[in-house]
Amino acid sequence: MEQKDIEAQVKDAIGRDAYLAMMGIELVDCGPGRATVRMTVRPDQVNFIGTCHGGAVFSLADAAFAMSSNTHGPSTVAIDAHIAFTAGAREGEVLTATSREVARSNRLATYRIEVVGPDEAVIAACTGTAYIRKR
Amino acid sequence: MEQKDIEAQVKDAIGRDAYLAMMGIELVDCGPGRATVRMTVRPDQVNFIGTCHGGAVFSLADAAFAMSSNTHGPSTVAIDAHIAFTAGAREGEVLTATSREVARSNRLATYRIEVVGPDEAVIAACTGTAYIRKR
Amino acid sequence: MEQKDIEAQVKDAIGRDAYLAMMGIELVDCGPGRATVRMTVRPDQVNFIGTCHGGAVFSLADAAFAMSSNTHGPSTVAIDAHIAFTAGAREGEVLTATSREVARSNRLATYRIEVVGPDEAVIAACTGTAYIRKR
Amino acid sequence: MEQKDIEAQVKDAIGRDAYLAMMGIELVDCGPGRATVRMTVRPDQVNFIGTCHGGAVFSLADAAFAMSSNTHGPSTVAIDAHIAFTAGAREGEVLTATSREVARSNRLATYRIEVVGPDEAVIAACTGTAYIRKR
Repeated sequence: MEQKDIEAQVKDAIGRDAYLAMMGIELVDCGPGRATVRMTVRPDQVNFIGTCHGGAVFSLADAAFAMSSNTHGPSTVAIDAHIAFTAGAREGEVLTATSREVARSNRLATYRIEVVGPDEAVIAACTGTAYIRKR
Repeated sequence: MEQKDIEAQVKDAIGRDAYLAMMGIELVDCGPGRATVRMTVRPDQVNFIGTCHGGAVFSLADAAFAMSSNTHGPSTVAIDAHIAFTAGAREGEVLTATSREVARSNRLATYRIEVVGPDEAVIAACTGTAYIRKR
Repeated sequence: MEQKDIEAQVKDAIGRDAYLAMMGIELVDCGPGRATVRMTVRPDQVNFIGTCHGGAVFSLADAAFAMSSNTHGPSTVAIDAHIAFTAGAREGEVLTATSREVARSNRLATYRIEVVGPDEAVIAACTGTAYIRKR
Repeated sequence: MEQKDIEAQVKDAIGRDAYLAMMGIELVDCGPGRATVRMTVRPDQVNFIGTCHGGAVFSLADAAFAMSSNTHGPSTVAIDAHIAFTAGAREGEVLTATSREVARSNRLATYRIEVVGPDEAVIAACTGTAYIRKR
């Protein structure tokens, strides 16, 4: 697909995704096999020890993964994901997740996702594999 | 810890966790090294293909993991988590996540978490490891 | 498949697997969606800190995973695996890995694998997902 | 540590690692928080479908991970690892695994490892977290 078609497809997917809207996750950039999304940690996304909840960090990483895996045309669905939590994030901080395709076959595609904080420190390192449903 | 102290500690942690309240995640049961939590999939927890967002499923699994790892007294923090998404869930369905400790040393503890749907079918299989911060 | 056909298929697969022979991994038991394999830690399977190498522990878990995912007839291939190393094992110890299917769809199947030592203590907790290549 | 001390430490660790010698895994290069290792797929490292066994691919990735996590002085031990198998490798092919540190705190460090084949195609994408035992 051309860049403008990729952007249109990703923006359409995000526009129809109720969870991303609820979580305050927005698109920064996308291209073939890659996507960057952003979220500002809200007071209601913090856990009982006062840092951004692991579920919220994962949701941001997963959003980048999902968008990057849907830049080729065929629809994909996540099979699995692994996340290493490498640092905490606090309320009010802007977190950015970037997903990049590392491999793609007919039926499967694998992505590396990094979540960084305001100072570019890595908050979480994620890997996701998607199943390609139709061609 | 005794069962009533475990319940008191877990309920206190959940009561102070803004993210769990926002996501509608509630405690079902807990005990030494184990916890069960529940969530009804809301319209704003659904993704652009109409199923419960992977980030919401993970958040539920992560909540069970966090609660089960905080039943021993010392505070813990999640190091990493892996999730296999094995089936989709729809709006209105009640999802239940149960976490059980499979190993524990002085500094590290590992948990298996299963997320099941209304018919007990496995929606996701998760594994998490936590770092034990103080004794 | 019937139990005797499952056993015949798994034994045939193991018999043609040069790596399992080289590593000293042998079948203990198998059935629909499950398999148990065993290995005695050799002097040449130990790492520089004197415990069974993570690669050898993973190889044993992966063997159980592969055998359990090939008990249904269609051929499968591993997509991903996660392993939590929960305790060390020493030279001469017998390690046993058991894999059980937790979910299966047309194209994907997910397994939980536990590796235990001589005292049944959990050495490693693994999860693997396989792609089903033909029906 | 200085580069020559890192190299000496890593070479010493590899020299005392019986499993790496048995598997034919050798050091290519190392530096602060990074290491590259190599293995030529032998006939006895192939599985029953004729490709390099997942356990052998993981062993190579794990070797790079272990070496890269031992370039700072303090001893480390692997907590967990995730591997996505993205392509098959055949007997006789040279596989190269490179591990790079993505985050490090007082007690934990996380690494990304890529395994590539002779044409630089990604065979496997791995992530590992290590516990730092002493300072």
